[in-house]
Amino acid sequence: MEALPGALGTSASLSLRLGQAIFAVASLLFMCLDIQFYSYTSFCFLVTVMGLVVPWSLTLAVVDVCSVFTNRATRQPGLLSIIVIGDWVLCFLSLAASCSTASVTSILLGSGRFCGVKLCTRYQLSSAMAFLSWFLLLFSSLFNLWLLPSV
Amino acid sequence: MEALPGALGTSASLSLRLGQAIFAVASLLFMCLDIQFYSYTSFCFLVTVMGLVVPWSLTLAVVDVCSVFTNRATRQPGLLSIIVIGDWVLCFLSLAASCSTASVTSILLGSGRFCGVKLCTRYQLSSAMAFLSWFLLLFSSLFNLWLLPSV
Repeated sequence: MEALPGALGTSASLSLRLGQAIFAVASLLFMCLDIQFYSYTSFCFLVTVMGLVVPWSLTLAVVDVCSVFTNRATRQPGLLSIIVIGDWVLCFLSLAASCSTASVTSILLGSGRFCGVKLCTRYQLSSAMAFLSWFLLLFSSLFNLWLLPSV
Repeated sequence: MEALPGALGTSASLSLRLGQAIFAVASLLFMCLDIQFYSYTSFCFLVTVMGLVVPWSLTLAVVDVCSVFTNRATRQPGLLSIIVIGDWVLCFLSLAASCSTASVTSILLGSGRFCGVKLCTRYQLSSAMAFLSWFLLLFSSLFNLWLLPSV
């Protein structure tokens, strides 16, 4: 079986996973650092989802590192199915969280009283990072889904 | 090739498409009827996306009706690829629109001044209908994606 770039156990997949984790951590830092984010449900949702994306992506990055360095891809159908399902679920959750945060921030910024420009910019950056994390998750899940029938 | 229930050209697919169109129309009606929805970006986004879902689902429902009644499934790989891509794009867009609307409504309801309870309930219902439409779109796209490698 040839290695599909971006599928589990390749160096492209490792880059995607690291990108997801980095953007998710950036989103968390923009949202949580010195801010009382828990007054809005959407922001709590974003923090929860990004808090799930970070360990998920890091675990799969470790799997990729093992595969790349031992040059032996782990291609068990059961494991790959679980990874594909997890990827898709997190993909939908992160899109939902990112869109909710963006729209709530837009409303808060429009009303002009609930958050200052500096604070709202941080919310917007957090939402943008979550969106980028979703984008990379989408690619990971598409590549793994493509690989699934051939395992 | 056996017919996969829910894939293009089956009666299950016809039910899914009709369900999507009905929920999308319900979402549009709850949002647009006698309401100035265009003061919020999220609501305009929802109306745009649902306005795309309705003709898309109805067109594919017509294709399904033709297939069911002539008993001859249209299984061209190119056509199916376009349908799968369109389904996935609309799936992501409708999830984003539904989540944005739900979170904005939650903020408006929380602030208590921008919309009354009756108006906010209509926004919430519209968001719920869009969410149901997304759910059915997800199933359609999954079934068609499953069928794609065997075409």
